[in-house]
Parts: sequence; C-alpha cells; structure tokens
Amino acid sequence: MTSPVGLHRVIEPPGVLPQAARRLDNRAEIGADEVRIAVERLNLDAASFRQLATKHANQGEAVRAEVLDIIRTRGKMQNPVTGSGGMLIGTVDAVGPQSPLGLTVGDRVATLVSLTLTPLAISDGLQRWDGLSEQVPADGHAILFARSIAAVLPDDLDPDLSLAVLDVCGAPALTARVVGRYPGAKVAVIGGAGKSGSLSLAAARRAGAARTVGIVPVPYEAERLESVGLADGVALADARDPVALSEAVNAALGGPADVTVVCVDVPGCEHGAILATASGGTVIFFSMATSFAAAALGAEGLAADVTMLVGNGYVPGHAEYALSLLRSDAGVRALFDARLAADAAKPGDAAKSGDAAKLGDAAKLGGAAKLGGAVPPPDPALPAGAAGPTNDIRTTGPADPHRSGAD
Amino acid sequence: MTSPVGLHRVIEPPGVLPQAARRLDNRAEIGADEVRIAVERLNLDAASFRQLATKHANQGEAVRAEVLDIIRTRGKMQNPVTGSGGMLIGTVDAVGPQSPLGLTVGDRVATLVSLTLTPLAISDGLQRWDGLSEQVPADGHAILFARSIAAVLPDDLDPDLSLAVLDVCGAPALTARVVGRYPGAKVAVIGGAGKSGSLSLAAARRAGAARTVGIVPVPYEAERLESVGLADGVALADARDPVALSEAVNAALGGPADVTVVCVDVPGCEHGAILATASGGTVIFFSMATSFAAAALGAEGLAADVTMLVGNGYVPGHAEYALSLLRSDAGVRALFDARLAADAAKPGDAAKSGDAAKLGDAAKLGGAAKLGGAVPPPDPALPAGAAGPTNDIRTTGPADPHRSGAD
Repeated sequence: MTSPVGLHRVIEPPGVLPQAARRLDNRAEIGADEVRIAVERLNLDAASFRQLATKHANQGEAVRAEVLDIIRTRGKMQNPVTGSGGMLIGTVDAVGPQSPLGLTVGDRVATLVSLTLTPLAISDGLQRWDGLSEQVPADGHAILFARSIAAVLPDDLDPDLSLAVLDVCGAPALTARVVGRYPGAKVAVIGGAGKSGSLSLAAARRAGAARTVGIVPVPYEAERLESVGLADGVALADARDPVALSEAVNAALGGPADVTVVCVDVPGCEHGAILATASGGTVIFFSMATSFAAAALGAEGLAADVTMLVGNGYVPGHAEYALSLLRSDAGVRALFDARLAADAAKPGDAAKSGDAAKLGDAAKLGGAAKLGGAVPPPDPALPAGAAGPTNDIRTTGPADPHRSGAD
Repeated sequence: MTSPVGLHRVIEPPGVLPQAARRLDNRAEIGADEVRIAVERLNLDAASFRQLATKHANQGEAVRAEVLDIIRTRGKMQNPVTGSGGMLIGTVDAVGPQSPLGLTVGDRVATLVSLTLTPLAISDGLQRWDGLSEQVPADGHAILFARSIAAVLPDDLDPDLSLAVLDVCGAPALTARVVGRYPGAKVAVIGGAGKSGSLSLAAARRAGAARTVGIVPVPYEAERLESVGLADGVALADARDPVALSEAVNAALGGPADVTVVCVDVPGCEHGAILATASGGTVIFFSMATSFAAAALGAEGLAADVTMLVGNGYVPGHAEYALSLLRSDAGVRALFDARLAADAAKPGDAAKSGDAAKLGDAAKLGGAAKLGGAVPPPDPALPAGAAGPTNDIRTTGPADPHRSGAD
C-alpha cells in the first residue's frame, strides 16, 4: 500500500513526511502509483552547495565524497546543515499503472519537488562530477510519488534555459495571482534583475499592474534591467536598509507598493519590504532567507496592516506559466540568456573563490530564489491572458493534488 | 527631528529599525510626537523567560541580574538569544504635542508593540521581582513612537484578564478576516484550547464559519474545550504528526479545512497544517515556532496550493475586537478565567521546575501565542457583527499608520 505523499518510503523517524525524514527507502522497485526516473543530472540547491564548498575549502573530491555519503545515508539529497536539496533532470523509465502523473516512459523531465523529499540512489559514484559546481552529472534512479510534480522538458528550448526557469517557476505565478487582486496595482520587486525577480516583474505587468519597479543593489544590475524594459522603473537600494528601500520604492511608484515581492536571498529584508508596502497591501516572501519572526514582529512593530505570504513552491500551472513568460517576453529571455552565457563563461566561479562575501553578493545581486524550493506557487486562477502559449510543456500532477495524504 | 518608527532612537547599528537595533537611546526626554509611560510591570515573552530561567537554573537573582543588564546595555528588553521581548503596562506620564496616539496623561495602558523595539529604562533595580516568573513589577520609563500602538485598559475587566487577551489579540482579528473570505468555511484551530486558539475559534464562528474544530493534544484539554462549547467539534491529535493531524481534521470537519489556524508554539507543525488544508485554502501561522523554510518547502513537496500567511502582530481594531469576544462569549471568558485562576494558583510553576519538557508541554497544551508579538493582525474590514461592544477600550495609533518611516 503506497501513500500519495510517500509515507511508505519513510524509514525514520516514523510518521513524518518524506521531507522531514532522516532516511528514505530508495529502492528501485516502484509502487503502483509511483514513477521511476533514470537520473541524468542533479542541480544542487545554491545554499547547500555553498555550505559544502566552504566546509571543504573548495576541494571537489571532498565535496563529492560528502554528497555521495549524504545520499547513501539518507536515501535522498538533503544537506544536513542547510536542510535544502535541489532538483534533478532525467528520463522516465518506469510508470506504475496507477500513477496519476501522466508521464510516459522516455519522457525527459525535471522534478519540481525538492530533492529533500525525493528517494534517490546513485550508481556511478558521481565520477563525472568534479565537485566544483552545483551541476552534478549523475547516474542512478529517483522516485516520484503520486502527489509529486515533474515537468516534461519542452522541445523548443535549451534544457538549461528551461531548468533555469523551472527552478523559480513558482514566483511569477503567485505574483500574478496576488497582483490580479489589486486593480491598477503598484508593484515593487526587490531583486528585480534576478531569475525569480525578472519573471515576477513580467508576471506583474501581464497581470495588470499599473506601475512596476525593480529594485537592485548595484548600477550594473540597474543598467541591465533598464535595458530590457521589464519594469516601468528601476531603482538602486540595499534591501537590508529599510528606510533606503522604502524611499526608493515610494519615489519610483509615487507611493508605497500594493504588492512587494521579495526575491533577494539575503537575510534582513523583511523590515524594508514591510515599510515599502501600503496599508492593505501584500508582501510575498520568496527568499528562503526570510525569517518568520522578523516578518511577524516587524509588521507589528511598524503597526503595518500588510498581508505577508510565505511563498510556497507550488501553484497549479506554474511551470507552463513561467515558460510562457520566457517565450513571449523578450526582456525576460534576454536576461536569462545573458545569465546562462555568464554561467557558462565562468563555471563554479564564485564557489571556487571560497569568498563568502562574494557569494553573498552574488546571491544579492542575482536575487535568484534558490533551486528547488525557494520559490512560491503559481496560480490555479491566473489572470486572463496569463496562460500564454503553453507549447509543448506538460506538467504532471494528480488530478486532485489535495486529497488526504493518508491512504 | 523624530521618526514615527523611532529611527532617531537607534544608536547602533545605524539605519536599522528599533527592533533590529543592538542599542536604543532610552532617554526620558520625549520628542514632539512621542509618549512616555511610567512603567508598572513588564510581561516577558514566554520563550525569553524560559531561556533565561533555564540558563540560570531557575536562580531568580541571576535571572533578575541578567534582565537588568540587558535593559541597561540595550536600552530595551530584548533577549539576545531568543530575540524576543514581551509587553508592558504602565501609566502615561507625558504626551508630546504632536503625538497621534490620542493618549492622555494618567491613562493606564498596555503596549501592543513588542518590548524588542520599545526604549526602556529601569529605575528600581527590579527589586520587587523575584526573577521566578514572567511578570516583572518594575519602576522606570518607556517611550512610544508616533507609530507605536497601546491600548487603554478597560475599566470593566480585571487588568490581568485584559492583558491576557491583549497579549494575543492579533489572532482572532486576522482569523475573522480570513474566514470571512470563505463563505461557509470549515475552520480548524490547532491548539484550540489556548488563549489565541480559543479566541480564534470564537472569531471564526462570528465570522460565519459553517463548522469549526479545535485540535488539542491531551484529553483534559479536549474536555475543557468541549465543556465551553466554543467549537463544533473537538479532536485529539499531535500537531507534529502530519497524518494524524490531517485525519483528525478531516474526520471532524467532513473534509479538509478551508482555513487552518496554527496556535501551538512548538516546532514542526507546518506539514500537518498544510496537509489538513483544502486546495485553495489558507493556513495562518500564529506560532513563533513556525519555520519559514519548512512551510515553503512543505507545501511544495505536497503539491499543496494553499495560501500561507505569516501572522503579523497588528491589525487595526485588534484589541477592541478581542476584548469584545471576551465580553460576549461565555466560553472564551470561562477558558480565560480558568487559565488566570490556574496561573494564580501556581506562580512560576513550570519555570521553577526547570523541566524543559514540561515547559514545552505547557506551551503545546496552552497553545498560547507568546507575549508581545506571536500573534497576527486583526482586521480593518472585520466581517459584519465582528466589532461587538467596544465598551471603554481605546486603542491608540496614528490616523495613517502606513506613511513612510522616513521623516
């Protein structure tokens, strides 16, 4: 008897969900509603890789050994320090007769649920990986549950480009949903030049925002964002400085934001985001560096009647929506292409330097929500016109993903 | 030149809001828009007091010395380990000519913003405090900013009763707001017998919930909650067990909850709350033990399209609304009276025992959102009938609490 949320794969401690488990059963045999993926590559979560690289002084061999040990010990890739995982791509090689995911053997897919809850086994010792970047070529298998999500990679896009978008696909969908609730919304996206930030800016505009601003920390990010025309305004501010941030937003929007989207993965942005938001407005926290307590106490301390959303990594239709933005919005495409080109030019760069400050800066500048989990959910009720051309992407998922996890 | 959010009182580091400051200027002289309170008593945040009591093995003298040292060093009461503060009561003894709070010298008030951002000085060495309970008799002064919030204590209620309600007054107001968006809502309150939980149950019913259930961890809590009739159903479950929790909610409500309210201050309740909530539903996290990452990744891992709210400690009208529930709902009143009687019978009890497990249990059983900040904001647009008799409570606050903090 299998559980749609994978309870049957939890070895210890009993009773918890796979993500909270210390150890999962990663056996290759699948249950009637499971799917097995032949793994091609892991994309480690940025925070996780950074921790491992720092711990091992960027010695690739040691990083590889620890990743192998984690997967062997836990039956999944979940960094015990950061708690984070990542995502993977591979090819479907077995589909249980009762799987509701709609996948077919041979489909090339990216998982849209975190590696932290995905049973995983490695068979090649990760020998093709140098341990120096988050991209991990790997042979092995992974298991999807009935309630997991995976996206079939589209044929019309470079797989790396698709992955970069899918990595943060929750952000634009949730942004669109929220912006749609505020007619004529003023929208601020903190970290607007990053992956989740640029997609969120495009989503806000499509969802009917009257005016948008992208906040970035350094001039070259501002120039880049301005050049692609994704936002009505671009402003420089350190998101950790509440007064500077709120002044920048007010100046650019002619008042506080109705919707503020936090896409910078650095701690300490909660107060500024709250201060920049109008009474009755909404702050969406996509950054995994968000402190629940700082947000809750900060809003209270400011007597700020703002709705604060925990970005969740799932909204029905999120993958299709994000890819449609990439296809239809030249500004989004230009930013992603430039990012991929830069990544290709200097692989493992920041990580290799071992410079934590530099890494922190990179995260701040990029404003990228991390791999496999940093980003929030897209919308079942996307605003009219938000769906765009879905082309050939198919996102899997049970017809009713919200039935009880108890089976 | 003073700042409505108190920036002028921040000594270090510069640029941050008072809550994030290491040290505040606690001088007694007030600015034109400030108010000075003659302090009568501090209510330390439960988590903070627990940390101090444990650290000092329940030696009251040592606890008192450390609290004094914190206030002397920081110019505010903010536990450096837990980051939390508490609230205070006192009497208004000076009002700046431009203060928007509507307070008058002689008003007896409770502060509804956290001690973590309130300039505070102690003048009596806390000599009347034994260091053995969270209630700290104190002489000294505290400062309110233009954008602070305080409630004038009502004449018709015991001050301890008012404080117990004001402590968690954000929870029922936000619950009412959210429940009002789901006509015929099914509502689950995790920790329904506690302070914030019982108020949230009463608020949900007033806001039109079709069916409510209070989830509690032990039989005597279930009996108590059943006896007062606050919920349509009462069920036993460990909130940290996702499957048990969601099964209990489903059984009691005849399906998943449209709105799930988390009022238990123990870690690990995120997954269960998400699993217990219907697709399209909302989870409100009032517990300061909530992990942002666990919530975000948990929803993604469950492919759960739920809205997750960070409970913020402020909603306009929250104090009046919570006190109106206490006055009008005999069940709420009975639970609060019983709690106060129990507290009076065994002062400092759990803390004195030094038994961390017991303290954890007390928090779990009580389900009380902590002092001065654990709870979320009430509503500017409370459902019809939600306002109730406001009697003589006045909550202060600027006419427009959302103007820019930069002045």
